Amino acid sequence: MAAISWAAMSVAAPAQAETLTLTSPDGRIAVTVKDDAGQATYAVSFNGKEVIAPSKLGMLFAEHHGFERGMAITGSARAANDTTWEQPWGERRLVRDQHNELAVTFGTETDGPARNITVRFRAFDTGIGFRYELTAQPALQGDIAIVEELTQFSVGDKTTMWYTPSDEFNRNEYIYRVAPAGEVDDAHTPSTFRTTDGTYLAIHEAALVNYSSMSLDQLRPGNFQANLRNWSGGPKVKTSAPFTSPWRTIQIADKAVGLINSDIVLNLNEPNALGDVSYAKPGKYIGIWWAMHINDRTWASNKYHGATTAETKRYIDFAAKHGFSGVLVEGWNKGWDGDWFNNGDVFSFTEPYPDYDIKGLSKYAASKGVELIVHHETSANLTNYEKQLEAGLDLVKAIGSNYVKTGYVSDAGDAVWIDDKGIRHYEYYDSQRMIDHHMTVIKAAAERQIAMDTHEPVKDTGLRRTFPNWMSREGARGMEFNAWGTPPNPPSHEAMLSFTALLAGPFDYTPGIFDLRPNERPPVRPDMPRGDPKNRPQTTLAKQLATYVTIYSPLQMAADLPENYEKRMDAFQFIKDVEADWEQSIALDGEVGQWIAMARQGRKSKEWFLGALTDESPRDVSLALSFLEPGRKYRAQIYRDGPHAHWDYNPYDIVIEEKVVTGGDSFAVHLAASGGVAVRFIPVK
Amino acid sequence: MAAISWAAMSVAAPAQAETLTLTSPDGRIAVTVKDDAGQATYAVSFNGKEVIAPSKLGMLFAEHHGFERGMAITGSARAANDTTWEQPWGERRLVRDQHNELAVTFGTETDGPARNITVRFRAFDTGIGFRYELTAQPALQGDIAIVEELTQFSVGDKTTMWYTPSDEFNRNEYIYRVAPAGEVDDAHTPSTFRTTDGTYLAIHEAALVNYSSMSLDQLRPGNFQANLRNWSGGPKVKTSAPFTSPWRTIQIADKAVGLINSDIVLNLNEPNALGDVSYAKPGKYIGIWWAMHINDRTWASNKYHGATTAETKRYIDFAAKHGFSGVLVEGWNKGWDGDWFNNGDVFSFTEPYPDYDIKGLSKYAASKGVELIVHHETSANLTNYEKQLEAGLDLVKAIGSNYVKTGYVSDAGDAVWIDDKGIRHYEYYDSQRMIDHHMTVIKAAAERQIAMDTHEPVKDTGLRRTFPNWMSREGARGMEFNAWGTPPNPPSHEAMLSFTALLAGPFDYTPGIFDLRPNERPPVRPDMPRGDPKNRPQTTLAKQLATYVTIYSPLQMAADLPENYEKRMDAFQFIKDVEADWEQSIALDGEVGQWIAMARQGRKSKEWFLGALTDESPRDVSLALSFLEPGRKYRAQIYRDGPHAHWDYNPYDIVIEEKVVTGGDSFAVHLAASGGVAVRFIPVK
Repeated sequence: MAAISWAAMSVAAPAQAETLTLTSPDGRIAVTVKDDAGQATYAVSFNGKEVIAPSKLGMLFAEHHGFERGMAITGSARAANDTTWEQPWGERRLVRDQHNELAVTFGTETDGPARNITVRFRAFDTGIGFRYELTAQPALQGDIAIVEELTQFSVGDKTTMWYTPSDEFNRNEYIYRVAPAGEVDDAHTPSTFRTTDGTYLAIHEAALVNYSSMSLDQLRPGNFQANLRNWSGGPKVKTSAPFTSPWRTIQIADKAVGLINSDIVLNLNEPNALGDVSYAKPGKYIGIWWAMHINDRTWASNKYHGATTAETKRYIDFAAKHGFSGVLVEGWNKGWDGDWFNNGDVFSFTEPYPDYDIKGLSKYAASKGVELIVHHETSANLTNYEKQLEAGLDLVKAIGSNYVKTGYVSDAGDAVWIDDKGIRHYEYYDSQRMIDHHMTVIKAAAERQIAMDTHEPVKDTGLRRTFPNWMSREGARGMEFNAWGTPPNPPSHEAMLSFTALLAGPFDYTPGIFDLRPNERPPVRPDMPRGDPKNRPQTTLAKQLATYVTIYSPLQMAADLPENYEKRMDAFQFIKDVEADWEQSIALDGEVGQWIAMARQGRKSKEWFLGALTDESPRDVSLALSFLEPGRKYRAQIYRDGPHAHWDYNPYDIVIEEKVVTGGDSFAVHLAASGGVAVRFIPVK
Repeated sequence: MAAISWAAMSVAAPAQAETLTLTSPDGRIAVTVKDDAGQATYAVSFNGKEVIAPSKLGMLFAEHHGFERGMAITGSARAANDTTWEQPWGERRLVRDQHNELAVTFGTETDGPARNITVRFRAFDTGIGFRYELTAQPALQGDIAIVEELTQFSVGDKTTMWYTPSDEFNRNEYIYRVAPAGEVDDAHTPSTFRTTDGTYLAIHEAALVNYSSMSLDQLRPGNFQANLRNWSGGPKVKTSAPFTSPWRTIQIADKAVGLINSDIVLNLNEPNALGDVSYAKPGKYIGIWWAMHINDRTWASNKYHGATTAETKRYIDFAAKHGFSGVLVEGWNKGWDGDWFNNGDVFSFTEPYPDYDIKGLSKYAASKGVELIVHHETSANLTNYEKQLEAGLDLVKAIGSNYVKTGYVSDAGDAVWIDDKGIRHYEYYDSQRMIDHHMTVIKAAAERQIAMDTHEPVKDTGLRRTFPNWMSREGARGMEFNAWGTPPNPPSHEAMLSFTALLAGPFDYTPGIFDLRPNERPPVRPDMPRGDPKNRPQTTLAKQLATYVTIYSPLQMAADLPENYEKRMDAFQFIKDVEADWEQSIALDGEVGQWIAMARQGRKSKEWFLGALTDESPRDVSLALSFLEPGRKYRAQIYRDGPHAHWDYNPYDIVIEEKVVTGGDSFAVHLAASGGVAVRFIPVK
């Protein structure tokens, strides 16, 4: 008879349901938890309007009775918190954790032996989080294999959704899409939503450890189920009781920027487990990197090898001269000369190429006050990296570096590990095996006081709070797509990132490309002609500067070649001046994928910086400067699009000017098509 | 460094590769098999042009070394076949199986112990098939868990693709989509393709037993990997050596109708394993079914219960009067009164409702020469059905019936089974557990000489050859979506089905709705007002008749209410006359999703029938009648769209006329917007 109409089906038996409600400190958000008809559900309202319709909770196991039916609320506990904690580095120094808590225990005695599970909810003024907590109990002995988490997010089919697809080969590196939620098959988190009455939501998770990553899978139109990434041969999660799941987070705001001005994800992570992480200093760096992406140089050790002693010295000199603390060098180690893609066991993390004098360069860098950032490309061969991990990190330390940039270039399901029988297993980059791998690396790095910047990572879930040596990562479409992507990042990309990927945490986007017409230069390598002229950053020069404020990374790259910066030292001054660590960050205004304006106060200088950027549409914006200290004057150094600027036809048209302003002023500025503005506010003494 | 450009990556080491080639009997199709760089690949060309670019072969196991790298061709064997076999019923009585065969054995001795796998290719004039064969061998002892089949289908990203999405809740019941293959995430098979130079392809599988269903998952743009459906808690397939996989089939044709005129899928199934299946007689039936979908009646046993003794008698009388061999009755058995969706353990397959006199009705039906088709809705609760299977089928036989229509209404991943510890497991409707379930049912039915019509089934893969009691099934969007679907089936639907879903096998579409404006009638049930006026078949009346020829099912329903047929006995005459079993079937002409013209010769009467139908576009078609016996005259009884017919504004405008024709004639006819034509050709003695 085929699926019948839903209307004809709803014949729910009346049941004596218990209902518990949790509200946010300001009372605007309410979570309602029920055990209606033997099923655990939650729903969320905002200002009295439902934003998450009743949605299931529960999980299923392979060899044990799970939590799905016959569930009844058997206990609950409430708590409240209002504390403030300090970050060693971050988007803001002080983070307030104010929330109300409700822990609901569901017991089930029918359909198998007695057992119970607790769902702990926390309601903040900017959203909610909840997680599952399973205690040790007689019915849940031994290894537990989670085959399905039943958590649903019923956002409504007409809710607008911004997302990247999750069931794709290129991991998280997709152009963001927008669609009615009812038409989205599968999506990574964070996914961002706007309900039909204009409330903004973002769904994500916090503290992803000892579990697999969650994506959103359309169950019925507008109702997503948590889809945990499975092991290649087995269940979705291998665990045992007691365990807790990661937190499922739903940020809620009446303006889009409210999603950015929320610390839920950090607050739901555990406190710093590492103690003093003063070695993990935020800073700016340059590197031998973009030259390979534009085919001037190679990772491989042929005559175009980028990572040579001479070239690295040139970068060290440039860094020292212009105040950069780090120099990244990719292609320094053996393994790049063959077919390394999907073949990561070729890489050595201890053997430099002969033309790279690692010891000499370390000394040279130290003498100039610069640190080398050591690159470890694993090509997602976990076993090869895990075997060499200690020796590789020891070498980093031996040459006096505190930083490693890792890479996991491979297709989404191709992270390789080899078991003790020698059998190769291929896992997803966001599977539990990979989550475990990343923690192994982070902990080994922490033991050696090394900070990590992970590329092709699992998405950030706020673990930098607990492990502050995990400073930055990739996890979205970065600048390199502008070198060779098909298509390159569209003009909306940076305005999209702020409201989506960046809700997860820092993103090493590697901004600051000044050569906006690379095709006009002759090719360096005869075997590699310049590619498509469309392959360039689709922004104005001023917008490149703006991204240093809108995109947060405590390790912030100036990604272009030194010679390209030397041609435009006037604009480069902003990159030299801008900080990478913040006392405060405020999202001022914007709209998802259209435009964003951020203000940040430098942690060291206490100077303020402002960045605003727009998509393809030119835009006149007026921003209140009320974030500035009242009554104080500031010299505003402004880098804005010139009157004829346009990302495609005239990207270099920039006006650099200085004005004196106060917090009472409004700052009105024109943003060109895919343009932007960057401002440094220097307090007048 | 993020994913880098593919161009920069291809540094394949030169290797001494072996190449084997297999061609079709007519020489137009060539399969090339290689072991290039330790990888097993195949490629397919048609008329000298590549239609499948080199694509990987192989599979990975959980606990054993798999077949992926270090593979070398270690042996091969060739064969050829040209035989003709007879179907007990079918689209054609005689099927020719003419093919060339190449079995290639790949051995691997690096990366684990010595082991080998054979890939058997068959090349027909209309496409190719291949399967994996694993022999018992020392390195592959014990249970084998397949975690990935590495088979790729590299069709090219610009190839046009018609498909339904596979990672969705509603199983196979989606409106077909069309997109460049490079933009398709996941797709069911059969999927249909048109390459940029106009060659048509269809990818599917044959003989799906002891395995899980294959869908197509985009690996890189235009390159799909076989995606086997996984067990909820485990791998994709649980097996042990020796085993063979289902056949992967690629149909190839230079015209779209060439895909239909191909018997590859049947030919790649094993011969009839059941012997005499004369009990499985093709025929036409009516039933108590549409009345529930349009909310006149209910499955539940309230005052609007459809399956009452009196109502069933009325249907039996109508069937007997008009020559229908079967009457389907849904809602006869206990279980429909509560919340049965996702709760299938409520169903009894032996207990009729008190208002349904099963014994009396059986006798009454027998006295009228009509058979009751017994309905078993399982709501995908496998354990509940398996427990009652023998008793349920025994009852069918006891009342003198030979037919069961099963139903598996549930969400895609919600097929329930309960293990011996009482733990509930939820599997996909096309997982190995479900494949096994269907075989259990088919075999139990065969033991009792019962024929099956499975709704919400796994897709057909030609198993009707081996188990000819598995007569029909659903597996695509059926007529009921026109009662309540959002949206209903579009005007292109029937012209799409012929080139897509119907390539798999018979489809119990349940055609023949004559009441094309159900909303103009007052509602029968006060609690159920008529729904959206858009909920109606979006066709003309003549197109409803045409579907009896274009859509093949050996059990073909006249789905509307008797009283609706009684209003239009002139058009109904075609449904009375048309056969459901065929001596021959010929797809004459058409284009995917636009229009189709089919001719079929009745197996009993030897009369020919022609059906042609179109999508939203009106169309003037001219069809050569060369399928008719040369030199013979036929009375052509024509049911065509009237001059003012239009599916939306004037669906009932039909012209019924008779002409005398011969095989030398062309038949020119106008098809209205979503219109059609049906013709019966009666040989003049």
